[in-house]
Amino acid sequence: MQAKELIRKKREGLEHNPKELATLVDTFLKGELKDYQMAAWLMAVFFKGLSAAEMHTLLQLMWKSGSTLPRRHRNDYWIDKHSTGGQGDKTSIILVPLVTAVLRRLFGPHCARIPMVSGRGLGRTGGTLDKLESVPGFRTDLTLDEAMALLENNDFFMMAQTADFVPADRLLYSLRDATATVDSIPLMACSILSKKLAENVDGLVLDAKLGCGAHLANPEDGRKVARLLVDLARGAGVDTVAIFSRMDEPLGYKVGNHLELEECADFLSGTRRERGLREVVLNLAGLMVMLASRRKLSLQEAIVECEKELEECVCMDVFRQMFESQGGNWHLFEQNRGILRSEMKFYVAKSPYPGYLQSINASEVGQLINELGGGRNAKEDSIDPFVGIEFERKVGDRIEKGQSIATVYYRKLEQEKLIEHRLTNAFTISSSAIAQSPWVLGMVE
Amino acid sequence: MQAKELIRKKREGLEHNPKELATLVDTFLKGELKDYQMAAWLMAVFFKGLSAAEMHTLLQLMWKSGSTLPRRHRNDYWIDKHSTGGQGDKTSIILVPLVTAVLRRLFGPHCARIPMVSGRGLGRTGGTLDKLESVPGFRTDLTLDEAMALLENNDFFMMAQTADFVPADRLLYSLRDATATVDSIPLMACSILSKKLAENVDGLVLDAKLGCGAHLANPEDGRKVARLLVDLARGAGVDTVAIFSRMDEPLGYKVGNHLELEECADFLSGTRRERGLREVVLNLAGLMVMLASRRKLSLQEAIVECEKELEECVCMDVFRQMFESQGGNWHLFEQNRGILRSEMKFYVAKSPYPGYLQSINASEVGQLINELGGGRNAKEDSIDPFVGIEFERKVGDRIEKGQSIATVYYRKLEQEKLIEHRLTNAFTISSSAIAQSPWVLGMVE
Repeated sequence: MQAKELIRKKREGLEHNPKELATLVDTFLKGELKDYQMAAWLMAVFFKGLSAAEMHTLLQLMWKSGSTLPRRHRNDYWIDKHSTGGQGDKTSIILVPLVTAVLRRLFGPHCARIPMVSGRGLGRTGGTLDKLESVPGFRTDLTLDEAMALLENNDFFMMAQTADFVPADRLLYSLRDATATVDSIPLMACSILSKKLAENVDGLVLDAKLGCGAHLANPEDGRKVARLLVDLARGAGVDTVAIFSRMDEPLGYKVGNHLELEECADFLSGTRRERGLREVVLNLAGLMVMLASRRKLSLQEAIVECEKELEECVCMDVFRQMFESQGGNWHLFEQNRGILRSEMKFYVAKSPYPGYLQSINASEVGQLINELGGGRNAKEDSIDPFVGIEFERKVGDRIEKGQSIATVYYRKLEQEKLIEHRLTNAFTISSSAIAQSPWVLGMVE
Repeated sequence: MQAKELIRKKREGLEHNPKELATLVDTFLKGELKDYQMAAWLMAVFFKGLSAAEMHTLLQLMWKSGSTLPRRHRNDYWIDKHSTGGQGDKTSIILVPLVTAVLRRLFGPHCARIPMVSGRGLGRTGGTLDKLESVPGFRTDLTLDEAMALLENNDFFMMAQTADFVPADRLLYSLRDATATVDSIPLMACSILSKKLAENVDGLVLDAKLGCGAHLANPEDGRKVARLLVDLARGAGVDTVAIFSRMDEPLGYKVGNHLELEECADFLSGTRRERGLREVVLNLAGLMVMLASRRKLSLQEAIVECEKELEECVCMDVFRQMFESQGGNWHLFEQNRGILRSEMKFYVAKSPYPGYLQSINASEVGQLINELGGGRNAKEDSIDPFVGIEFERKVGDRIEKGQSIATVYYRKLEQEKLIEHRLTNAFTISSSAIAQSPWVLGMVE
């Protein structure tokens, strides 16, 4: 079937057979089916969707389009976690050392491994790799051999996609990004899972964010994506569970690359643990441990093990190991906390009247960080790791008149107007007390 | 507004303001907005459409994107005709000499002119330029200067789009052709009219084809397009009328490039005039004369003038002038009629039983001519001008058992199976008499 006939078929809402999808992906990778033809097909998919069978086939074609991680041992359990993304979502960086420490203690070293291929931030949403790179020297651009050596010795790595890792997704994602077809649910699902399947994991925990700061603002869409991802991943043979968690308010006390890594260290060392971050981390860690126990532990039992780990804080050693084994200088990172305070301008948002903090709009906060240079609009943009916001109060907290709610770290004096504008939109203060709502809103088991 | 924001806006079904459309077209022409982004936008338009205001703006941007025909005189009336295309539709080649002869007689030379920029055939639909080029030496690739000199002296020309004539349409059309977005009604309307507006005409007659052989198989769509085209062209200041005419059966006795030109000569000379072709030609010619009279003549009066012209056949001189002034060798063309008979294979379709010819499926006939090499699938394909089909009987005619219905001219023996197959699909013979239906089904005045 010719390229334009494939496009026409999808345009008419008809279902492709596996052979047609193989032609589509293969000829696209070879450059025979042109970018503009794929762009038209992607837009047709945006409007007409993909059936479960089409998604299953497309996913297989995508994850097998490049190198995958080789499995050398029979009995080690490989597990990963993926979040659909939001503001202040630094859970991956906490989960890798925490879950590794729990699994080592429960089952011994090398029985479970976390091969984590992560992404970068785009638009108002931050990315794990950008946060990790605030640690001077930390390398996310590992080769496949380096990554496999780390996985063998340390039981985990955190790296960026290599050029040959799921090339079909890389090419399709750039096209989608340039053609306003990112928020197509079936394309999103195939993109996310293609990278996880190429990791060759046995188990996968998904965190589907719901709320104004999430990629999908509509909660129903968020839930639909979560269910779809679970079905698709299970159909591909990966034991998968998902939670829905709140992204109406930023997660944790800090948003911004360097600041979020500080929060991760503070969280693991027990210095400061924000309620929402603790709830989301414990649920995700619990699910990862539950799956890695080959479901011998219940979620509740697994969470108890994770809580015990947080009390004992052994995972701080794994956290430091994580940075040092990939070239990161933790000492220099700690020194930079001082630089952050001295070199940056800061704006303190104060409450104009007493009351209760009713909402912190995650989307506005994400936009602000992005506009201040802490995020990127295009893939090639560089980012300022020190830009960020630190909340002294979170939703539900009591505030007095004139009391500071948050501090914004920024570079240029002329950005003050923008900060004021965004924060005015972001904060709502109410005179009546607000009930604290749970952060984990549901689960697909 | 960024390219992807423009795409997103159309994807959401929102209306672009004129500035946004100007950005879209300008950045596309400069190569800043990429082919794949335009392809995604075009597919979004396929699904979400364009408002009347958007079409008006897009049309203006398109026709002004390159050179247009300069108007040197104040009082000459410029008129053109456009058909949405079908099988055996050779009316333009008859109309140019016929209407020129009528207008010269009625109003004197140089009072009205026909600057006709035509297209080529694609798929099952033939094109005026391909038909004209069956006359050896005939040049359709005139420069703008050559065309203007012809218009000045002869009051007409028939030529192909030059590189600088409506470049926005040329680029958009190639993209649409490669991405299955040709049959979007608003894009089709802007494409058709952009070329006519760039001719700088005062009046325009449209022939919207309805039926299985037309671009739009659905008659309701055909009528909608005709109304839309008339509204859009009038909104741009061109006095415009449209007819709907049948394209369920091929028009005239002959389909195929060389054969159709023969039929034009036979029609103008009075040798042979098929009923349907006569009806469509007289209506279109009448409307052209009516408009060129600045609506001083009614359609009925104008048709009477055209009928008178057909009786006297002065237009045969203009017909020969048309070819000779653009390098065509009419004598050689006439000689080639003999070659056609001697060099081609021919297949005679005979009726298996007596009855009445109930239908000749125009789409099947178009497909057949295309498959035999008389049409093209891609723009760069060459065509065989001698391939074609000649009907001895048309819909409604009585046929006896074994009597021949049509003769197909082809090159390769192995094509016989294909011909048999297509003709079996194309012809339906009924035992009861069929009422002859009119060819012109309606009018937008």
